[in-house]
Order: sequence, then C-alpha cells, then structure tokens
Amino acid sequence: MKIKNLIAATYAPMHKDQSLNLQVISSYNAFLKTNKVTGAFVNGSTGDFASLSVEERKQIITEWSKHRSDNFVLINHVGHTSLKVAKDLAAHSADKVDAIATLSPFYFKPPTLESLVYYCAEIAKSAPDLPFYYYHIPVLTGADFKMIDFLPMAIDKIPNFAGLKFTKNDLIDYNYCLNYNNKESNVLFGVDEILLSSLPLGATGWVGSTYNQMAPLYYKIIEAFKAGNMELASELQRKAALFVDILNAKGGFNGVAKGFMKTLGVDCGPSRYPHATLSDADYKIIQKELDAVGYKGLLSKN
Amino acid sequence: MKIKNLIAATYAPMHKDQSLNLQVISSYNAFLKTNKVTGAFVNGSTGDFASLSVEERKQIITEWSKHRSDNFVLINHVGHTSLKVAKDLAAHSADKVDAIATLSPFYFKPPTLESLVYYCAEIAKSAPDLPFYYYHIPVLTGADFKMIDFLPMAIDKIPNFAGLKFTKNDLIDYNYCLNYNNKESNVLFGVDEILLSSLPLGATGWVGSTYNQMAPLYYKIIEAFKAGNMELASELQRKAALFVDILNAKGGFNGVAKGFMKTLGVDCGPSRYPHATLSDADYKIIQKELDAVGYKGLLSKN
Amino acid sequence: MKIKNLIAATYAPMHKDQSLNLQVISSYNAFLKTNKVTGAFVNGSTGDFASLSVEERKQIITEWSKHRSDNFVLINHVGHTSLKVAKDLAAHSADKVDAIATLSPFYFKPPTLESLVYYCAEIAKSAPDLPFYYYHIPVLTGADFKMIDFLPMAIDKIPNFAGLKFTKNDLIDYNYCLNYNNKESNVLFGVDEILLSSLPLGATGWVGSTYNQMAPLYYKIIEAFKAGNMELASELQRKAALFVDILNAKGGFNGVAKGFMKTLGVDCGPSRYPHATLSDADYKIIQKELDAVGYKGLLSKN
Amino acid sequence: MKIKNLIAATYAPMHKDQSLNLQVISSYNAFLKTNKVTGAFVNGSTGDFASLSVEERKQIITEWSKHRSDNFVLINHVGHTSLKVAKDLAAHSADKVDAIATLSPFYFKPPTLESLVYYCAEIAKSAPDLPFYYYHIPVLTGADFKMIDFLPMAIDKIPNFAGLKFTKNDLIDYNYCLNYNNKESNVLFGVDEILLSSLPLGATGWVGSTYNQMAPLYYKIIEAFKAGNMELASELQRKAALFVDILNAKGGFNGVAKGFMKTLGVDCGPSRYPHATLSDADYKIIQKELDAVGYKGLLSKN
Repeated sequence: MKIKNLIAATYAPMHKDQSLNLQVISSYNAFLKTNKVTGAFVNGSTGDFASLSVEERKQIITEWSKHRSDNFVLINHVGHTSLKVAKDLAAHSADKVDAIATLSPFYFKPPTLESLVYYCAEIAKSAPDLPFYYYHIPVLTGADFKMIDFLPMAIDKIPNFAGLKFTKNDLIDYNYCLNYNNKESNVLFGVDEILLSSLPLGATGWVGSTYNQMAPLYYKIIEAFKAGNMELASELQRKAALFVDILNAKGGFNGVAKGFMKTLGVDCGPSRYPHATLSDADYKIIQKELDAVGYKGLLSKN
Repeated sequence: MKIKNLIAATYAPMHKDQSLNLQVISSYNAFLKTNKVTGAFVNGSTGDFASLSVEERKQIITEWSKHRSDNFVLINHVGHTSLKVAKDLAAHSADKVDAIATLSPFYFKPPTLESLVYYCAEIAKSAPDLPFYYYHIPVLTGADFKMIDFLPMAIDKIPNFAGLKFTKNDLIDYNYCLNYNNKESNVLFGVDEILLSSLPLGATGWVGSTYNQMAPLYYKIIEAFKAGNMELASELQRKAALFVDILNAKGGFNGVAKGFMKTLGVDCGPSRYPHATLSDADYKIIQKELDAVGYKGLLSKN
Repeated sequence: MKIKNLIAATYAPMHKDQSLNLQVISSYNAFLKTNKVTGAFVNGSTGDFASLSVEERKQIITEWSKHRSDNFVLINHVGHTSLKVAKDLAAHSADKVDAIATLSPFYFKPPTLESLVYYCAEIAKSAPDLPFYYYHIPVLTGADFKMIDFLPMAIDKIPNFAGLKFTKNDLIDYNYCLNYNNKESNVLFGVDEILLSSLPLGATGWVGSTYNQMAPLYYKIIEAFKAGNMELASELQRKAALFVDILNAKGGFNGVAKGFMKTLGVDCGPSRYPHATLSDADYKIIQKELDAVGYKGLLSKN
Repeated sequence: MKIKNLIAATYAPMHKDQSLNLQVISSYNAFLKTNKVTGAFVNGSTGDFASLSVEERKQIITEWSKHRSDNFVLINHVGHTSLKVAKDLAAHSADKVDAIATLSPFYFKPPTLESLVYYCAEIAKSAPDLPFYYYHIPVLTGADFKMIDFLPMAIDKIPNFAGLKFTKNDLIDYNYCLNYNNKESNVLFGVDEILLSSLPLGATGWVGSTYNQMAPLYYKIIEAFKAGNMELASELQRKAALFVDILNAKGGFNGVAKGFMKTLGVDCGPSRYPHATLSDADYKIIQKELDAVGYKGLLSKN
C-alpha cells in the first residue's frame, strides 16, 4: 500500500488553558475527510510534539485511533531525542495506527548515516507490523544527510521500512528518492509551498500543515496540472505561499495558523510556547485580508 | 525582449599552460548554436571569473563579441568585490554585448538590501543602454536576500533593470519573482538539476553550466513536459543530475566538466585552481560510464 | 551567594542494560568532593537529559539531593522543549537542590530575546526560592543571542535570576557579562578547554564535563596562573584539550568520557544513543596513551 | 626572526573622491611608530584589498616600502581569488617588504587542506626569500580548517613558511598552534577584542585593525597583565570592545573606524563600498561619546 494524495499534519487541539481538548478530534477528523484529505500525520512538528508530554502524545493518538476508517490513513510521529522514549511511543501506538514515523534526534545529532539508520531501525522494531517512515526535516533537526544515501541502507536494515516524509527544499534528492529502485519506496513530499514543482517529477503523496487549511486549493493545483493548465496551477501555488506569508507576518505561521482553524470551523484552540495565538478580532482581520486577495473557494470547508 | 530557452554559462578556454586560448571561442560559439543554445553567459562562475585577471576577462568578452549574431544572446558577467572594477568591466563591455549581469560582493557582503541595490545600480549605470541582470547565487556569495524583496527595489532604482539569474534551490521565491507584476521581469532559472520543476511555474529561460554538455537532453525534458509525458521528463531530469554526480565524483564537477568539453569537440583546456582537470585517459573512462547508463543522444554534438 | 570554582556536569549513571544505576551517585558525590569539585550540574548535556525520560530525570535529582551538604552546590538542569514539562521538572526539584538552570528550547527556537526571557521567567517562577541560571549553549540549541543583551532583560523580569552557564567560545560577550553592573550576576564559564583564557577576565566559577576527569589538572592551571607561571598554565591547558581530542578520536568524547569514569573509580556505566561506549580493553589502551603523554597526577582520584 | 607586539592592519588612504592618497602613508607610518606599533599589515581586510584594483594594491605597497625602517615590519597581504594574480602580487612585492601573507580563496573555497596548502605554497614560491604567513580568517573566507592540522603540512611543503595570522575566536586551536613543535611558528593573534585572553597562553604578537586607534590601551593591557593586575587588564579589554561597539553602531565598524583616523590625526579619507564613512559632525559626536566613557589617554596619539 502506498499513501497517496494530501495528508494533513494535524494540530494538537487544546482548551483555552492549553490543556488538551481531545473532544475536538472527532469533528477534526470529519472536517479533513470532507475536504478529501486522505490521512492525518499526528504528533508531528505541526502537532507540536516537542511541546507535549509523552502522556499527552499518547492521549492524542489514542483519541485519533478511535476514529480510524478504511479510507483514511493514520500516521503517528513517535520521534524523540530519547530513543528509549521513542520506542515506548512506537510500541504504544503499534495497534492504533496505520503507520509510524520518526525524525532524527535533534539535540545530539546522529554522527553518521549508520547511526541514524540504527536509531530508525530500533524504533521500527517496536512496531514491527506497521509501515515505518523516516521524517526528513533538516531545517529543524540539523540532521542533513542525502536521502538517496539513506534509502538503500534503510531498506536493507529495516524490514518494515515504507518510505519518507521529505520536508526539504531539495528536489534533486527528492527526484532520486521518489524513483529509487522502480519507485520502491513511498516518498511523501513535505514542502507544501512547492507541491506544484513536485508534480512533473511524479509525486503522488504529500504531507503538510497547510492541507488543513487549503486542501481544495491544492486539489485544484493537481487538477490544473493534469489538465495542462500551468498558468492556473502556478497562480494557485503562489496563492498558497501567500497564505503562509500573510499568517506568518501576524506572529509566526505555526501558531497563527493553528488559531485560524477556528475560523474554518474546527476549534483547535491556542498554541503552546514558543508559538503565538492571536485574538478572535485578529482572525477577523486576517479573514478579510484573505477575502480581498481572493481565497474564496480555496480554503477547507466545514 | 526577454531572453528565452537555454543559455550556457561558458568556460574560459585555456591552453595547456592555463593561458587563455581565445581562438577556441569561434568554434565554441558555433557548437552552442548547433545545440540550439540561445546565448552565452560569459565570465560567470562557470567561466571562472574569480580566477581570471581583469584584463583576461576583457579579452574573453572582446573575443566573444566578435562572434555576435542576431539569434544568440551575449551576456557579460561583470561582478567583482571591487565596485570600481565592476564598473570598469561594465563600461568596457557596454558596446560589445547584449546584456550585463553582476553577482553580489562576496568578501564583505552588502549589509542591507538597499546596499545591494546601490551596488547594482552603480554598475548598471556604467552600461546604461544594456539590460541589467542581477545574478543571485547565495551559496557562493553568502548574500541571501529574498529576491521578491529585491525585485521592486531594483525596478525602482535601476532604469535598465531587466531581471535575474536565479541560482538558488528556492522555488517559492522563484515563483513569486517570475510572476511579479505580470511577469514584468525576465527571471532566468539557474539550477539545471531541477529545470523540470521550474516548468509548471511558467519558466521560459534558463542559464547554467550543464547546457554546455547536455542541451539536447534538456530540450527533450521541455518537449516531454509540454507533451504531458512526465514519466520521461522526470527520468531525463534524473539523468542530468546523475551526469553531474558522475563527473563530480571524479574530482569536482566544475573542473572535470570543463575538461570534458574536449570529449564533446570543443577543447576548453584545463581549469585553474582550485578546480582540477583530469587526464585524457580519465575522460575515456567517464565517457564509457556515461555510455553504460545511456547518455547516447543526450549530450551536445559538434 | 556566588557559585565558585569547578562544578562538574555530571553523568547519568547506568547499569549495563542502560537502566539507571542510582546507587552509584553516593560514591560519585564523594569522588567529586575528594577532587575539590564544589558542585554538580545534574541532568545537563553531559548528563544526557535529552536521552532520559522525565521520570528518570526526577529520579536522578532526587537521589543526588539525598547527598546534599553545605559545601557542595547542587544544580538541576530542568530545560525541555516543552515549557510545561520544564516547569514540572523545576517544581519537582524546588525543595531538593541549591539552584536550577535551563537551556533554550531547541526544536522550535525562541523567535526573539523577549520570547527566551519569557520561557526562562516561567520556569524560574516554578522554583521561586531558588537561584535561576540560564544555560547558554548555542552550538547545541541553535539559540544564539548575545548574553549581554539577555542579562539586563533577565534581571528585570526574573526575580530569582542568578546568572549564566556560558558555554560558548565568545570571550568578548563573556567578559561583558561577567562584569556587567559590578559583577552583579554569577557568570559561570563553560568551555573547559579555554578555562585559562577566562582567568585574566576575572572568572571565578566554571561548569563543565571534564571537571569530572581532570579536576586536579584544572586546579593546577588556576594555581599556576595566580603564581604568574603562564608557561606551565598554558601547557596544562593544552593537555586538557589533548585529553578531549584523544577520547574524542575513539568514538566521540561524550560517550567515551562517560565510560572512562570507571577507570577513575566511579562506574557510570554505558552511554545511551547516540553516544558510544567502549569496551574495558579499549579503556586500557586509552589509559596507556594518557600515561605516555604524562597525565599522571592530573586526573581525578578516587 | 619572530614578529612581536602590535602590528596594525592598515587602511588604504584615500582622497575624498575615493582615489588613493598615497601621500598620507608617510605620516601614517610615523603615527604608528609614535604609538609603538611595530609593523604594518598592508592590503588586508582592513586595507580593503577586495575593493582595490591590482594596480592600486601595488601602488600602496610600493609607497609603504619607501618608508621601511629596521624596527618596523612591513607585511603585504597578497591574497586573491585568482592564484595567478596572487602570485603576481607576491612577486611584485618580493623586494619591497619584510614578509607576505595570504588568506584562502573565498569564492570557490579550497576543497581540502591539501588544496589550501598548495595554494599557499605556490604564492610563497613567488617571493621565496620572504617569510610567508597564512592569514586565517574563516568568518570572511569560509575556509574553516583547523590550523593545528594545517601547520605541519605547511611547514613540510613551504620552505619559507613563517606562521599564521590567526583571526578566529578559537583559543583552543590557537593554543595548539602557538606552541606547536616548541613554538616553531610565529602565530600572530588576530582577534583584538580578546587579546587579553591570548596572554596566558603565551601570545607575543598580534595583528589587528584597532591597533591603529588604540595602541596605548592595548599596551596598558599587556602591562597590567604582566604586573598581575587582572582587574585593570579586564576593564581595559572591555573598553577596547566597547570602542568597537560604539563605532559599529554608527554604520559598521570597518568604515566608521577608517573615517575616525582623521580625528586621531591621520586622514585616511573615506571608505569604499560596501563600507560607510560618516561626516565630520558625526565624528565629533563619537569623540564626545568616547570622552564620556573615559577613553582619554587610551587612544593613539599623533
């Protein structure tokens, strides 16, 4: 099985006091399906795994697992600076999700590629019946190996290796990986703002945070591309990037975009430190700005 | 006029003793035209401007200017850490070429975007009747400003501003620039290994060093893309990247690729320090390796 | 009260199976005192906080607190990417230690200095009766603010602010901080290999991992400096750096040095991923190498 | 012969129109001697080599050579991205100076240490009777090799190798180099703001730009250190750093400090791009600010 289409990197829903609001997950799940999002990447960077306790990460994935369905993929990110903790998280979700993923340790970084593969293999072993994905996000982890070197080693050492979440602005390495050994691996692209550029390379699956807010826009990009209407596709891609810029300018994309979910009908609540959440009044201003530049029909609907 | 299609970043042809071999430029020029390359970007990074004396840079562009023709664009890179020298180079070539370009100063870097625009404006003034291009190559210059911020300032301050040579793996910024103000500027893409990814964004012009060696391959990519044959386009793009990898592994792409030109029929001679040139025997091995992975018909012909 | 002299950044003692070995802490504590180390910085980078679970960090500091004594300072590092968890760790040790410290969040970094101070203030509030130290280690956290800018803001916003653990090769900023407002803050220097260079600036306190293994050597450096014997001081300082180089070359300093503790009489056991631990045979080789270059009398004694 | 004490990295004196003002060099030379500066490092970063033409660099060193005297060392920096040009500069000054120096190429960087040593050896050969220094300034060149690895290779391959101008905030590597093989090499320290920290390591020679403006201050630091008065030495060192901060805040240290020379009695004129020069009125304000924080008696005198 290969994961396809748009996978949303989901937020950790919270009450106003920043405690978890697990009740929202049911409607969050429905919201994503409504917008043709085909899966959820839970407890990732968007999901603020680094600001959660281990117990909270378990609660979140447990709740999501209650809403599993056949046509919706559930991936749990279990990465942690502690291999021991990461294995515990993997084992905990082994019977709850469709796949697990981990990033690289990011305090002390793996000194070699072998060391990174060892880390991944140990975690994959803790959920041996699940497909395992490596989450490549060097801008945040500092572990910047070429994935085309990683891939053969991972395939060799990890029986349940499935593929990559490739979150780096390097389409050379991505093209190599996507097509390695007859497209053996499931290489999901992770830079939403250049999804269009991944299409001619053969991309079929993507994971990202803006698929929460703009799934319709991205499906229109894919459609336009397939129809050969590059003018439209390119314009929509710029609009997606502009959305990120607009929200980012208001106090950082990560936090502002989480708070914006309420505007779209799914109240994910505030962000934890270091991300900022805006007031309802601020979000009304943002909504107006977006309307002015023509986002009607492009944002996800409830 | 907008520069379109493939522009080769040309080498500085040399004798075995590393002195300039200006005689080769005539056949080099014909070779590029034979392969449908539509222009030459002279004295750039590929042209080893940093290893040449000012006098040598003038000799090279003077020789190229003798072979100007209507359907072939001649661009002279005049960038230098010394603004005074850069202006001298610009003025020298003002009546010899179709356009000039400059990168950012790279010892002491411009402290602000304003400072970079000032540097460009001063140089552009020295050849006021020629289109002026800014050559954005932060991996080598260390000047890493967003070009979408640079563009409006450059348009405002530089009457003869024409566009960018955009040599950075950032297709978000590229997409913004390409489409800024109704495609007002001529934004030439400069990362050969992902040319394919620039196509759905609307790219129509490219400058790079591998258009010396693989122009037919790249035109096939463009053709396949237009025909909707992404499978083929993607495969050819990987082959282009592989070519770079193969040569790079033999001692550094810059030097090895220059020496490889002899194999293709244009003897550009050896590279200057710090680039390495291989022996004829080495190039025979490379030729065999390339044949083995199927480059027949993809390399430039004499 | 200002913390003075050598503070050891302590290891997390483990059994062969990498579970915690809390029993060792009693003799570890005595070992440090024997070598005139004046305190322990627990659960820091050397203490592999990032490889421990929250529960393990609590167990370790709880055990250390049982061995508190008047002339030995106990500092607990409570930093975590999750502010919530960091506050929990701070509160837990509020009645167990002499001071707490935190580094900067290192997955998502603080976007501004204000944001970093807010993070510190929240943690300091959780142990309001204890002196609070900020642990500046940008090479690992990526948060690289000037501490002379941080200091006045921290003093203003954090009532129990005490000082810094300054682990960066920047003696300009260190000199400013050390002497800020009549030496108001307790700025502990954290780059062991250049302790000697901190002495003429007025340094009186240091925190580092090599004070575990070479406290006698460092006290000899301080003594030689005070006696004006710079020749000897400089030679000893190079020896300290050489010790790090020798162990580092065997598989990474962090892990190899932890395993070396057994040779010195305190069996801290193996390291957790990503650090490597060597075999007993390997440590005999290291011991011989050290003897050969004259470390007798310079290493810590049991 | 070992170069000792304070060597000033000199400015390129200019007329108001930014053309060279060679006449000033005579009094500049006398000014430095008056302030016990023991030599001049000409055409370096402070001397804006990167903004000068090759001809200008030759004119400047030719003028300096007319004022050579026994007790004043003249060093010409001949580094250039073009090895050919660097060799030409070295040969030109072979009979004019006491030593030559070069930094690393900084557009295309040397791929290996061997490559850097080759570059240095070729240049050293062009002035075979002069001591040769390697100018290590990775923050500007991007060539960041450990000098303790460079030193043995350079000694082996370069018959006239003399030592290093070590301009990096890494006192570990500096301590190793300074004392390598019984202090065989002449390792001049180049970070003025931490001169004091180099003293206990055994430093006896320094090259820097602020020795133009504050030679008396630095000699007082050395004196205080030798007398064991670290309190005073540390305070003076902070004052030196503060001077840099104050001028830097007015528009960049490099340019502002050059313009400040006029205040001290040596009119070096304005800076070239990208450095800024202030107005006379601005310099009066700076002078007042400096007086207010007590620089009287610390600045160089005419």
